[in-house]
Amino acid sequence: MDGYSPFIFNDNDEFRVIDQRFLPQIREVKINNLEDTTCAIKDMVVRGAPLIGIVAAFGYYLAIKNSISIDELNLASEVAYSSLIASRPTAVNLKWAIDSQRDVIIENAFLPVEKIIKKVRANAFGIYENQKKCDEQIAKHAIALFNKKLRILTHCNTGSFATGGIGTALGIIKYAAKMNLVDEVYVNETRPYLQGSRITAFELSNEHVGYKIVTDNSCGILMMKNMIDCVIVGADRIAKNGDVANKVGTYCLAQMAKVHNVKFYVAAPESTIDRTLDDLSSTEIEIRDSSEILSFNGNDIAPKQARALYFAFDITPNKLIDAIITENGILKPPFKL
Amino acid sequence: MDGYSPFIFNDNDEFRVIDQRFLPQIREVKINNLEDTTCAIKDMVVRGAPLIGIVAAFGYYLAIKNSISIDELNLASEVAYSSLIASRPTAVNLKWAIDSQRDVIIENAFLPVEKIIKKVRANAFGIYENQKKCDEQIAKHAIALFNKKLRILTHCNTGSFATGGIGTALGIIKYAAKMNLVDEVYVNETRPYLQGSRITAFELSNEHVGYKIVTDNSCGILMMKNMIDCVIVGADRIAKNGDVANKVGTYCLAQMAKVHNVKFYVAAPESTIDRTLDDLSSTEIEIRDSSEILSFNGNDIAPKQARALYFAFDITPNKLIDAIITENGILKPPFKL
Repeated sequence: MDGYSPFIFNDNDEFRVIDQRFLPQIREVKINNLEDTTCAIKDMVVRGAPLIGIVAAFGYYLAIKNSISIDELNLASEVAYSSLIASRPTAVNLKWAIDSQRDVIIENAFLPVEKIIKKVRANAFGIYENQKKCDEQIAKHAIALFNKKLRILTHCNTGSFATGGIGTALGIIKYAAKMNLVDEVYVNETRPYLQGSRITAFELSNEHVGYKIVTDNSCGILMMKNMIDCVIVGADRIAKNGDVANKVGTYCLAQMAKVHNVKFYVAAPESTIDRTLDDLSSTEIEIRDSSEILSFNGNDIAPKQARALYFAFDITPNKLIDAIITENGILKPPFKL
Repeated sequence: MDGYSPFIFNDNDEFRVIDQRFLPQIREVKINNLEDTTCAIKDMVVRGAPLIGIVAAFGYYLAIKNSISIDELNLASEVAYSSLIASRPTAVNLKWAIDSQRDVIIENAFLPVEKIIKKVRANAFGIYENQKKCDEQIAKHAIALFNKKLRILTHCNTGSFATGGIGTALGIIKYAAKMNLVDEVYVNETRPYLQGSRITAFELSNEHVGYKIVTDNSCGILMMKNMIDCVIVGADRIAKNGDVANKVGTYCLAQMAKVHNVKFYVAAPESTIDRTLDDLSSTEIEIRDSSEILSFNGNDIAPKQARALYFAFDITPNKLIDAIITENGILKPPFKL
């Protein structure tokens, strides 16, 4: 990628992230401690399920790194865990990442505290490196789905700013574009946060991949006019039966794709699969603050007294999904994850 | 309505419209001549199929009112017709209104020029008054569809700022709300022009009808959670078989409604029915300037070099529509208009 990484964590433990709320403008935010980390996740300074997991893992390390006894370490670890788990309820990678950090502490409890802390630091980097490898594997596996140059519709941002690597769904698009297997990319603007217009477009511009931004409500006319071959999206949580929770609007795309005989693919690392859930039929949907709908860049869009309802996610039933692509390969229905 | 009319045309032929691009802020624009009228329609200073027709009818009058011979009148009439017909291709009411004005001139060609001009002026007011009556009739007929208090999803703006009267789809909602037949109104924000957030919300606030704004991509999760009883929308053009052209996003709502067993209603005056068209399968879809997607209030949303594709309308096939409500009653499928 030409230049921009969503975060930096250097040898002196200086941790800075790009504030994604302002992209395509570049503004960096310094993350000094646990509180900064939870705020960055909660306020969507960083977003994207895998990236949230990575940032949470580094934040976990910052939260425990100054412990001088095992008791202090365990206490700091519990505080970090409960604070981070509450910061964004839907992203399963967040839980996966902090479970992993807590496990490092539990499994190495016999070691001196400073060694445990070092292992937690190394584990954060490990999670990051693992994600980058995952993304590449996902992209490589997905190429088997390109029987010709495809016209692809994507939603939200599932690129470097979502994972730290090349991305999941967007990683596939970038990788396929390099192999000259992409005919056109339609980028859903993705209301209300505009991850598509602001972030996906930014990444594709940086990578010199051609694209057109469309409003989220255009999927019907685009498919009716036979302008789309497939939809590729990411996922925030996948149940054992293949049900997918993802950015609001995904379900609608999947339903329209089914009606128009357009392929619908989900790309996500294995860590997104929540094997504690048989399906997502009773999943609670995160409701976010309505100000994200009612104002833009601090300017009111709607009347002062207006109210809004902002479901941040929706559920795509497994029967609408033609393939789930993970780092381990392409899964076809019926899904048994 | 508490205070705001979308336009004023007074005894001195002073013609002012509210610039709908800035709503909920109130800014008036003076319309002095034909050119002002075509610009106001083309640039969406005024929008809404019936209101465009009314404004075009008054603009037509301004274009011909200073003619002093029948030849001059006929020439001015032809210029007005060809200029107005090109200003907004999808709205059939526009054609209907200017056809009506041209007919007045043709049918009264035997009269003195100043008398013809007076008749054209009166015909503009007639079109306006007729629309107001239409809207009321539509609302009264629609009440038969309310077997209980309904939770309604609507798209775009189909109220006073779309018709000059109480509105079509939104007119029904306002009228039903007064009869205590509305449980909740969900207002699609309606990207990119935000007619829902800016204009429908403004009207409902003025009328003290409770509502919640939702992003257009929320229809899936709202219907999956069984929060919607029916969708009511307007129409820009209806073919003889009941196919409906309307604001982009309508088709997606209709398809999702079908899947979720939610009723889908279209409300429009008879003048919206284009009886020259058997269906809308070969209708050209207006593509508008992509700047409406790429910027907001003059601020860029997307990267500088980004491109966008903006289809302003889509087509809802007749098989997805449970009823079309006109001033003459409720039509059920199969539609033979």
